[in-house]
Amino acid sequence: MNCGELLIIGGAEDKCLEGEVLNKFVQLALRHSDGGIGILPTASEIPEEMSKQYIKIFRALGVDRVEVIKLDSREDAENPLICEQLKSLSALFITGGNQSRLSEQIGQSKFHQALSKAWHQGMVIAGTSAGASIIGKHMIVAADTMLNDDKLKVEIGIGFGFLDGLLIDQHFSQRGRFDRLLSAIAVNKELLGIGIDENTAILVKDGLFEVFGQHEVLVLDGSKSDYIHVTASDNGSEELTLTGFCLHALTRGYRFDLVTRKLLMKKGIQP
Amino acid sequence: MNCGELLIIGGAEDKCLEGEVLNKFVQLALRHSDGGIGILPTASEIPEEMSKQYIKIFRALGVDRVEVIKLDSREDAENPLICEQLKSLSALFITGGNQSRLSEQIGQSKFHQALSKAWHQGMVIAGTSAGASIIGKHMIVAADTMLNDDKLKVEIGIGFGFLDGLLIDQHFSQRGRFDRLLSAIAVNKELLGIGIDENTAILVKDGLFEVFGQHEVLVLDGSKSDYIHVTASDNGSEELTLTGFCLHALTRGYRFDLVTRKLLMKKGIQP
Repeated sequence: MNCGELLIIGGAEDKCLEGEVLNKFVQLALRHSDGGIGILPTASEIPEEMSKQYIKIFRALGVDRVEVIKLDSREDAENPLICEQLKSLSALFITGGNQSRLSEQIGQSKFHQALSKAWHQGMVIAGTSAGASIIGKHMIVAADTMLNDDKLKVEIGIGFGFLDGLLIDQHFSQRGRFDRLLSAIAVNKELLGIGIDENTAILVKDGLFEVFGQHEVLVLDGSKSDYIHVTASDNGSEELTLTGFCLHALTRGYRFDLVTRKLLMKKGIQP
Repeated sequence: MNCGELLIIGGAEDKCLEGEVLNKFVQLALRHSDGGIGILPTASEIPEEMSKQYIKIFRALGVDRVEVIKLDSREDAENPLICEQLKSLSALFITGGNQSRLSEQIGQSKFHQALSKAWHQGMVIAGTSAGASIIGKHMIVAADTMLNDDKLKVEIGIGFGFLDGLLIDQHFSQRGRFDRLLSAIAVNKELLGIGIDENTAILVKDGLFEVFGQHEVLVLDGSKSDYIHVTASDNGSEELTLTGFCLHALTRGYRFDLVTRKLLMKKGIQP
């Protein structure tokens, strides 16, 4: 069987009945089997409140079985009973919070292995905000770029590894995160940077992604750059000199070929 | 005689004795003649306080004659006596504030003509923040992009026109302005977008610019894009779909060829 779809959401997705992004997730989850949806709120410091709102919206959208995976420690992540929970699910929703909590508690654990296996067997995985970042092999873990004189050094951490070669960032326009994505790609130019706005998502399947939701997705490609140089400024902030980075932006319905790194038109639209 | 240099500063330049950007300005001003430096504080709502701090630093840097051009209305801008003031100056410094005040009070006035003539005869012109934006033929006049769900529509206004084909933005990284520059260039793709960080400047002369100061200058080139499409999202914000924008970033000492739109290496550095 093929790997399941990955729905990677830029955070703050609309939780009303008409919300396009969560409707897409439920549609994918229900299509595949009669298994339920699991909610993984481990990234959050308020996992119960976080879970409740998703239970409510998923049920309202017609999902009979919604269950929460209570995984709040490294011990939980090694617990076979919790891993077992994944077997009866058709889809998993990873909530927002702090992506470092996900990597610290779950990375390289039995639960991580079980999740990877379930995904390889067709489980749909969605993640929003921190849950979006964790889906890649690499992720940005630094605190937000401060909008002051000190431009923070961006730190790269290890995610769940369901997508290789991409570096996801979320809340992208809304939190002014272009700088931090550019900095991250400048020192990892083999990675393709993907900045996803709030209430916006990419659906990844078969080497392509398609955009859903309200705003934009920005794609930053440094692979053809012939010069990248990072210097420290007088106060220690990192400053970039670089040439020839390529930038694309996509909205709802447009697709992007992750192999050729080219935007694909919507049906009926010619470039 | 050739046009004077343009020193375009991203705002918040260091005003201590060692500040690289203002030192560069003074050096250019003193090199050309024994004329003084004029300060044009029209963009500011506190022109006197604004002028005082520049008088202090320019004097400390060795300029004997520093004078303020008190121009606070359309009437002032048509006053021949105020226009006359420009004749004895070797350099003009345009302060920050609101660029719309500069265009409303000075645009297409006698003072504007006199300034243009003085520049064509070799006057050095520096502008910081609003004073940087006004230097181009086109400028961004919208309020700041709000870092919330509503991404503002960017408005383009008319500047003093000393640079054609460029669109300057300032306080660039520090205020997270990448989005607004990208939006502006998407609908004006013949313009080259230049985003200048705080305490950082470009010195424009003979179809090139060189970077001075602490942080980065970002160059955004949409001229080779083969698809740009702007849509309105559900709440009216503008959303972009576009391909193949080219991005460069430069730090102190690097230069950019405005004709070929290519970064030039520093001496001794090979790409």
